[in-house]
Amino acid sequence: MSRLFMFEKPLGMRDTLPDLYERKQHVRAAVESEMKRWGYRFILTPTLEYYETIGEASAILDQQLFKLLDKEGHTLVLRPDMTAPIARVAASKLLKEDLPLRLGYCASVFRSQQREGGRPAEFEQIGAECIGDKTVSADGEMIALSIASLKEAGLENFQLSVGHSAFVKELFVHILGTEERARGLMKYLYEKNYVGYREHVKSLPLSSIDTQRLLSFLELRGGQEVLEKAHSLIELGQGKEAIGDLEELWGILVDYGEEERIFFDLTLVSHMSYYTGIVFEIYAGQVGFPIGSGGRYDGLLRKFGKITGATGFAIRLDSLLEALGERGESGQPACILFSPERRKEACGLAASRRKQGEWVVLQDISGVSNLDACTKQFSDTVFLVGKAGREKRT
Amino acid sequence: MSRLFMFEKPLGMRDTLPDLYERKQHVRAAVESEMKRWGYRFILTPTLEYYETIGEASAILDQQLFKLLDKEGHTLVLRPDMTAPIARVAASKLLKEDLPLRLGYCASVFRSQQREGGRPAEFEQIGAECIGDKTVSADGEMIALSIASLKEAGLENFQLSVGHSAFVKELFVHILGTEERARGLMKYLYEKNYVGYREHVKSLPLSSIDTQRLLSFLELRGGQEVLEKAHSLIELGQGKEAIGDLEELWGILVDYGEEERIFFDLTLVSHMSYYTGIVFEIYAGQVGFPIGSGGRYDGLLRKFGKITGATGFAIRLDSLLEALGERGESGQPACILFSPERRKEACGLAASRRKQGEWVVLQDISGVSNLDACTKQFSDTVFLVGKAGREKRT
Repeated sequence: MSRLFMFEKPLGMRDTLPDLYERKQHVRAAVESEMKRWGYRFILTPTLEYYETIGEASAILDQQLFKLLDKEGHTLVLRPDMTAPIARVAASKLLKEDLPLRLGYCASVFRSQQREGGRPAEFEQIGAECIGDKTVSADGEMIALSIASLKEAGLENFQLSVGHSAFVKELFVHILGTEERARGLMKYLYEKNYVGYREHVKSLPLSSIDTQRLLSFLELRGGQEVLEKAHSLIELGQGKEAIGDLEELWGILVDYGEEERIFFDLTLVSHMSYYTGIVFEIYAGQVGFPIGSGGRYDGLLRKFGKITGATGFAIRLDSLLEALGERGESGQPACILFSPERRKEACGLAASRRKQGEWVVLQDISGVSNLDACTKQFSDTVFLVGKAGREKRT
Repeated sequence: MSRLFMFEKPLGMRDTLPDLYERKQHVRAAVESEMKRWGYRFILTPTLEYYETIGEASAILDQQLFKLLDKEGHTLVLRPDMTAPIARVAASKLLKEDLPLRLGYCASVFRSQQREGGRPAEFEQIGAECIGDKTVSADGEMIALSIASLKEAGLENFQLSVGHSAFVKELFVHILGTEERARGLMKYLYEKNYVGYREHVKSLPLSSIDTQRLLSFLELRGGQEVLEKAHSLIELGQGKEAIGDLEELWGILVDYGEEERIFFDLTLVSHMSYYTGIVFEIYAGQVGFPIGSGGRYDGLLRKFGKITGATGFAIRLDSLLEALGERGESGQPACILFSPERRKEACGLAASRRKQGEWVVLQDISGVSNLDACTKQFSDTVFLVGKAGREKRT
């Protein structure tokens, strides 16, 4: 192998070394156990899927997909998200009689990166999906469950921005006349480029009332009072329904006792094009981007032949760890160093300490070239070397 | 999307539904916690690696690799095993001052399959590697740890076949003259085709003594007495050393109190070409193939620029589950069905039961079209519907 490749990993690919591994495992277990307590059952889907089945349904940009060809010449993708594969499984195997189905997952997803030093190309998402329930209660449960999961993981300082895909779309299409123009304006919102939005709105050939409505729209961010303001901006049926959803959601979150974590942001637009209703993003402490997001995607199941409601969310495990910050060191194992004549005694001692739950390394002293460096790694070292009765302990 | 692809998955790719997911998780946790108690720390490497770095080092047949091209035209592979990636990480980051390094992993590996209905193309391995220790104690630890891990997972009926790569190779090269001819004969052993082996041996232009030695070699399977017999077959230094290793290993396993699980099989040959010393395979109950295997691979680290010893093993999680057989059903969650006027009460009841560790689904009754089918899924259902004081319980 060339030296160039000896230690290299593909762009955006990372190793998880023991300290990080243990922190991830701890946080993952906390979130997963909370989701289970809410009646979510976990599934896992394959890393590779057909492009035609999942790649097209996933709402991740085509250029971000890792693609390969199978032996029959079909295009495969490394799963770019878990929502589309779960929709596939739900539609094909699990969704009987339209009963609400609660599923959880914890899996790596893959998004090809363009630059060195950029974002990871493989990262772990923990998420929940509630499929087959069109009520706003299901949306409320997603938000309440994401809050409960993050609390269980030890996160304290976080908030959720809540919006509604249909509200934005209805308002923009009503004012601008076509979906294409609406999408052009939404792009600024997705990029959170409010200056660009204002300039674009001012450049449009609109009545001064409509221009003002689009500019006022940017102010629909804040507490419950935002919903009141929103009513005054819209006239349409569906836009009204969207605000009705959010009002009902507010009541639900009050019942959960979690309304203080909620910040309405009607300008919230997701890059996931399959969202159709209430959407949300989770912001934590000093992390400058959402550590998780979710929303209602009633259209996605239709791609798999089922017409039913669905809502869900995903938390990025790496971002959640960033939000949690460094926590205490993981423990160090102890060590028993032995020479062959005391091996049996060493095996017995190791077994009994392990039975107590201790982490104990059992090490043949002849396998160690640098004793000082070796013992330094351990919380304590017992020497069972030479004749019995002469042991020392560091 | 075409109907053909609506629900299809690529060849050898499988979904893991909740019951299987929970069984896997339970067994994985048992094995992982045992490995940790032995001082193994877990790491994870990326799903994608450069072919030049890992594909070539991995000892998996090229035709079994999933390959793709990155944007610079380099070939990437989905990791076909974890030993080579761990050797990469150990050599580049973790192996300081040649200290013995104990690492564990639990990860999916990928091997492209040729036929429908064949073996899985993605499966989970849980394994341990002890790197930087050339003593037979390290080999003994691998075997003792694999036994302890399987016991912790609840497996009772299993045995380990133990052989030595160097012994076979030395004997065959000594008698047949070249490595190429030795490999030709080893192929029969790898396939466990003993009839073919005998026929091949008889067809070779050898002295009758050498023919007899190669035929007697097949009998080197059984208890400790096999090692005695092996001495009589060999004359060489390295072959003698190999038997010396196995004698020392026997003593070590007696000290661990695990010698009864051991079956010597000097005809054991692995398809993993990187093994250089003691090798073993784990057989359980009615499963007709090894559920795990391991061995010493002192040469592999050299590919990553470090000259040091290494030994390890991996257990296939799916095969271990097969060996364990069906265990008790997973629990069913309970359900609280509510209507909006009692939502707050329902939220409170769910929270308090979840706090007790119960799995509780909270369900808006208006999200359910078929109540009977819905309640059937749950261990019990509480109705908080309509005015208070009129609840029923199923």
